[in-house]
Amino acid sequence: MTAVVPDFLPEGIDSPDDFSQLDAWWRAANYLAVGQIYLLDNPLLLQPLRAEHVKSRLIGHWGSVPGVTLTYAHLNRVIMREQISMLFVLGPGHAAAALNAASWLEGTYSERWPDVGRDTAGLRALFRQFSFPGGVPSHASAHVPGSIHEGGELGYSLAHATGAALDNPELIVACMVGDGEAETGPLATSWQAPRFLDPSSDGAVLPILHLNGYKIANPTVLSRIPSGDLLALMNGYGWEPIEVSGSDPAQVHSAYAAALDFAVDRIREIRQEDAAGRGPRNPRWPMIVLRTPKGWTGPDKVDGVQIEGSWRAHQVPITDVRGRPEHLHMLDEWMRTYRLEELFEPNGAPAAAIADWHPGGQLRMSANPVAHGQRQRDLRLPSVADHCIEVTTPGSEFAESTRTLGTYLRDALALNRDAKNLLYFSPDEQASNRLDAVFDVTERRWCAEILPGDDHLSRSGRVLEVLSEHLCQGWLEGYLLTGRHGVFSTYEAFAHVVDSMVAQHAKWLHTASEIPWRRTIPSLNYLLTSHVWRQDQNGSSHQDPGFIDHVLSKRPEVARVYLPPDANTLLYVMDQCLRSSGLVNVVVAGKQPALQYLDGPAAREHCEQGLGVWRWASTDSGYAPDVVLACAGDVPTQETLAAAEILRDMVPDIRIRVVNVVDLARLFPPDVHSHGISDDEYTDIFGDTLPVVFAFHGYPWLIHRIMYRRPGHENFHVHGFRENGTTTTPFDMCALNGLDRYHLALAALEHIPALAGRMGDFRQYLLELLAQNRAHTRATGEDLPEIAEWTVTPEPEPTRSK
Amino acid sequence: MTAVVPDFLPEGIDSPDDFSQLDAWWRAANYLAVGQIYLLDNPLLLQPLRAEHVKSRLIGHWGSVPGVTLTYAHLNRVIMREQISMLFVLGPGHAAAALNAASWLEGTYSERWPDVGRDTAGLRALFRQFSFPGGVPSHASAHVPGSIHEGGELGYSLAHATGAALDNPELIVACMVGDGEAETGPLATSWQAPRFLDPSSDGAVLPILHLNGYKIANPTVLSRIPSGDLLALMNGYGWEPIEVSGSDPAQVHSAYAAALDFAVDRIREIRQEDAAGRGPRNPRWPMIVLRTPKGWTGPDKVDGVQIEGSWRAHQVPITDVRGRPEHLHMLDEWMRTYRLEELFEPNGAPAAAIADWHPGGQLRMSANPVAHGQRQRDLRLPSVADHCIEVTTPGSEFAESTRTLGTYLRDALALNRDAKNLLYFSPDEQASNRLDAVFDVTERRWCAEILPGDDHLSRSGRVLEVLSEHLCQGWLEGYLLTGRHGVFSTYEAFAHVVDSMVAQHAKWLHTASEIPWRRTIPSLNYLLTSHVWRQDQNGSSHQDPGFIDHVLSKRPEVARVYLPPDANTLLYVMDQCLRSSGLVNVVVAGKQPALQYLDGPAAREHCEQGLGVWRWASTDSGYAPDVVLACAGDVPTQETLAAAEILRDMVPDIRIRVVNVVDLARLFPPDVHSHGISDDEYTDIFGDTLPVVFAFHGYPWLIHRIMYRRPGHENFHVHGFRENGTTTTPFDMCALNGLDRYHLALAALEHIPALAGRMGDFRQYLLELLAQNRAHTRATGEDLPEIAEWTVTPEPEPTRSK
Repeated sequence: MTAVVPDFLPEGIDSPDDFSQLDAWWRAANYLAVGQIYLLDNPLLLQPLRAEHVKSRLIGHWGSVPGVTLTYAHLNRVIMREQISMLFVLGPGHAAAALNAASWLEGTYSERWPDVGRDTAGLRALFRQFSFPGGVPSHASAHVPGSIHEGGELGYSLAHATGAALDNPELIVACMVGDGEAETGPLATSWQAPRFLDPSSDGAVLPILHLNGYKIANPTVLSRIPSGDLLALMNGYGWEPIEVSGSDPAQVHSAYAAALDFAVDRIREIRQEDAAGRGPRNPRWPMIVLRTPKGWTGPDKVDGVQIEGSWRAHQVPITDVRGRPEHLHMLDEWMRTYRLEELFEPNGAPAAAIADWHPGGQLRMSANPVAHGQRQRDLRLPSVADHCIEVTTPGSEFAESTRTLGTYLRDALALNRDAKNLLYFSPDEQASNRLDAVFDVTERRWCAEILPGDDHLSRSGRVLEVLSEHLCQGWLEGYLLTGRHGVFSTYEAFAHVVDSMVAQHAKWLHTASEIPWRRTIPSLNYLLTSHVWRQDQNGSSHQDPGFIDHVLSKRPEVARVYLPPDANTLLYVMDQCLRSSGLVNVVVAGKQPALQYLDGPAAREHCEQGLGVWRWASTDSGYAPDVVLACAGDVPTQETLAAAEILRDMVPDIRIRVVNVVDLARLFPPDVHSHGISDDEYTDIFGDTLPVVFAFHGYPWLIHRIMYRRPGHENFHVHGFRENGTTTTPFDMCALNGLDRYHLALAALEHIPALAGRMGDFRQYLLELLAQNRAHTRATGEDLPEIAEWTVTPEPEPTRSK
Repeated sequence: MTAVVPDFLPEGIDSPDDFSQLDAWWRAANYLAVGQIYLLDNPLLLQPLRAEHVKSRLIGHWGSVPGVTLTYAHLNRVIMREQISMLFVLGPGHAAAALNAASWLEGTYSERWPDVGRDTAGLRALFRQFSFPGGVPSHASAHVPGSIHEGGELGYSLAHATGAALDNPELIVACMVGDGEAETGPLATSWQAPRFLDPSSDGAVLPILHLNGYKIANPTVLSRIPSGDLLALMNGYGWEPIEVSGSDPAQVHSAYAAALDFAVDRIREIRQEDAAGRGPRNPRWPMIVLRTPKGWTGPDKVDGVQIEGSWRAHQVPITDVRGRPEHLHMLDEWMRTYRLEELFEPNGAPAAAIADWHPGGQLRMSANPVAHGQRQRDLRLPSVADHCIEVTTPGSEFAESTRTLGTYLRDALALNRDAKNLLYFSPDEQASNRLDAVFDVTERRWCAEILPGDDHLSRSGRVLEVLSEHLCQGWLEGYLLTGRHGVFSTYEAFAHVVDSMVAQHAKWLHTASEIPWRRTIPSLNYLLTSHVWRQDQNGSSHQDPGFIDHVLSKRPEVARVYLPPDANTLLYVMDQCLRSSGLVNVVVAGKQPALQYLDGPAAREHCEQGLGVWRWASTDSGYAPDVVLACAGDVPTQETLAAAEILRDMVPDIRIRVVNVVDLARLFPPDVHSHGISDDEYTDIFGDTLPVVFAFHGYPWLIHRIMYRRPGHENFHVHGFRENGTTTTPFDMCALNGLDRYHLALAALEHIPALAGRMGDFRQYLLELLAQNRAHTRATGEDLPEIAEWTVTPEPEPTRSK
């Protein structure tokens, strides 16, 4: 390979001589990375390497390290020259050794982790801890200063970088994209970023597509297609690609420096032109295509097999170092090729030539305050009480809960307009999910062409809509990880699209919570609507309530699930979520007209408790009930209340307690989840011998999985989604899954021993009512009016005297 | 818009006059689609529309229908002219009304669903059933003849089309990609297909990117970027784009016909050149960019608001038809614009002009045998016994289970080489997962450039590796849906990337199983390896066993999970999976050296039972045990056996029963899952009052969720992954989660009442052993040799006499 120097070089390109410090820094970083992979001791090679200096389990990824360290060095050169603020996002996250090395050289690693100092002992600690029990992982994680990006699962770097750039107009987010990662779907669609980035209010994203040519065992697609195709691809996505290619360090240094100078100049130009009103509406941002060998500067061949520039450089290039003296010797030789005598003082500190060769203070990418939430501010939030809807009699009127929330979200946006730290994300569903009140005060973000008839589009809109749950999630994560706030509203069933992303984010939050210098970032807030019970328009493909199961499999310290039954509870729940930090909050609420139960004060109290007995719907006052009807979720709550009324009508003497659960985690034992109520509180509500018929929004076993250690769990009978999905009416969906009022009433009756003799009649009566609706549905496509329009009949003041 | 006629038109382009039949067919299809959305009755408009003819709940998606029907018509024209085999994959799956209409016009709908005949009653049924209780969904599902693609969740059409084309060299798979769907990640990376399609052995994929400009409420990105960018994008992905654009039907017919003629000619040319050895190694396949208005031919404006050509045409263009007479009138007028008197006979049959205007027999896209598995053949599979490894004494030697499986998979590939109906898929992990024996007989599929040093790449390789779980899954699904077989091996944690895809596939399988004319397709087989307990190289980001929880939330009729403890059980399990059909089989097995327990015959019997008592590891012969040690998964099995040995040493008189579970579904009650054993069988194994310490591969609550209705469930104590992930040694990972031998032994002792008095000593002893390993691990990075190299000490022949 030869260096390709772009022909559009700016004036005054650095002469090769200027790169001696940069090259030394690069060599130092590479040396430190190799040390992390291999060494337990003897970090400065003061003695010839011996077997006991080397780790017994050699773990790490060398292949992409030299490209990462090279890039870091060249970005530092530009930062020093221009004194600009850059954030670094590392797509090839398994090259964590490179990031550790860079931040150690910049001093931030030792500032953050004082036990890893800038001396021989620190070097030894840096090396030893890497991929070592009790140490740090081999992929970039929250422990790395300046990093916002979990490097374990590939595909999200460019979306994170884009999210970090939003509302950070001074920032350049340099994002290394590995050519392996570039094959993933999320990364592929992340290239669409220029259509959504506003040059006047957002930072710039500078992607650096690193083609080192190989994955674990295969070449990478983008490194093996014709160069013209690759440039066309990047052009097609709206970027201006700049190629840098080579395997001779001196040549590559020249070309890379020129390319980055060009890119940064171009970014400045775009911003200036835009500020002057001269720029195109959707400018073509620069990006870099970097081709360097995999495992560059590492061993060329080992045991006669090609390593450098091949897939074999992916992980540990020289294996079995302890067992084979010639391998040990090869490692020793390799490490000395970096000329460490020029790089380190005898005490292990960086040598003078490189010690200060990095940007100062917060301009170090490893110390960028954006990365550690240091600039984050709490939201100003509107009064919930002001947004509560009137509810005079519980269950007497219908409203769209998410529409009410929309007014609150609108006012939240307005209150934080100047702070610019709140955004909403949705896969083209903000209005369909009835949150369109926000368009009173903002628009949808759109930097591509706008035509007459378009609805609320602008370049500065604060609602980001794109038909990709991956992008919505990735952008929001990037925004949160840099200390801002947001809400992601989406179809419940399709939240599974981001299952793996939320798992990684939850893990990041948990890891970060144990790192003393990381400020807790704002919570990741989901509003799942268009949920399983109201897919009136769609069939079984849109019916899946399992996202909450998935989220609750993550650490209880970070996972929360809320099922507000109506508009006012939804308001209080979302307010709590937006005030929280460090959590994954999942809120499930319907968008369709639904019964409203609690007025503002009652909703507030209910949400504070997280669960509670609804006295107004219960008939057990002062007595142990015959049965507890519990519910969680808006549709199950409606069916439960209707069941209670049916039971009252059928068996007037029956004593029923109605319990509603908003905060699902309240049900966990308190030693499992901090929100869990004590067993005493639990027994006060559910009893320990009472039959409980639980109408649940999701899969029934989620309740069993949460409750199996609770007293009296064997008396729990959970009705929920039994994977009986189809296209039908709202009530018929409940009926198909046994969640309807008649099945719930039947279940309650079946568990009251005193009624055993009358069950035949009861069963016949209730199943007949069910059949009537089914027949009506099949004939008309609608539920019976007495079901579809059912409202709560208020219980008269207690009349029973005993 | 004006029609853009490509300037490379072939000779002899059709004159506009030739399109009258095509246009009539198109109008008929559009009419039928509108009828499905709106009408309950009066399907031929023999009377002026009245309110009662119209559905009360108007549900459906009109916006993309006219582009789909247009495309279907034009593909039919080409098929008739060329007599070629085409399969149609509908990306904008919500346009199901278009597909229903097309197959009804082709006669296949009535052949498959005799109650929907080609007469007035049939028309009425066709209309009425659409998005109606007891009917068919508004998105393309398994009920549509000729369709292989679930249209509910967007993003997978092009991957399915690519999978369908693999090993179908005569086929052209026409794939409509919606411009909304095109924003998803999976679709974006699906454009990479040309780098993997072999012109000599695969069919051609003909993508038709339909830019109708809008999603639900927003424009689409690809419709609003400069046309040059779009063409560059498609070029960059390796396609030759052909643009067709317009809103005047006559013009568009000419342009579309010419474009498709060109495309089909080009496909033929590519194939011929390739057969003659003259073609490029990676030819540039044609694709179509089709720009037509959203809701084309529908109402222009309603209530003064623009509908046609706008986002408002997405769903139902005229709403509240029953309630507003002017809307009813408008609908009547709209439907009559299709001139139905030219389209239908008085008895409802298609009029002569269009009745036969479609390809014949199996050339109808709705009758392509590829779509219904009609050509599928069972696999020829090697003898499992021949591949079993020798196991003389249980637990005495180590082997890599997946490496053994690799030899079986290699031979399976060889046996079906001529049938070409078996492929393996992996995100660059086939070799890393130790399945590289397959490369003795095949290579990795690679149509881009090949360089010296590449490892087993060829254009005809039968292992498809790409760093995208979405592509692996989507390609495999397309391959299975067209009746072939495959295995997807991947990292356990990252299987979550395809959570939503497997959910949709499971739903498809269940729906299809209820459709009498659909042949059951081969099962979707996962091999999850590099699992949670052996992430020696990686940290918590790679540790997540929750994919099996997700799969088991789907219908029990289709979901299976296997946890073979060693190589021979893995062989028998995978053999069973490859012989099965209609299922989602998840097999979890480690790739690291691990203890081997069962020889061939024992493994076979154990797999047939699905679970069982391991007598050779138990000390309860003839007596009720003091404790049952159950286990599922390779690492939990090892720790359980070690715990049993520790217990034997500590309390020689203790009676232990060891139970191993391979088929997790055996634990379900039999009324929940057909694999569930009876409560009697269950009690024979686990007792109903015995303490059971269950060492489980995954999250502990999965066992509780499966078992909560089993007798004695309250005595179950499950140890599994408690989301304590980190970078550490294999044993330390177990210890962190309480799954190690010492914690298991401790748990067993704690639940034996007779030992209560000695627990203090026991606890101290066992925790001391744990602490010793931890200290060793922290010092050396390794587990103590007596743990890492532990093997089973065979129990001497029973000596206890009582």
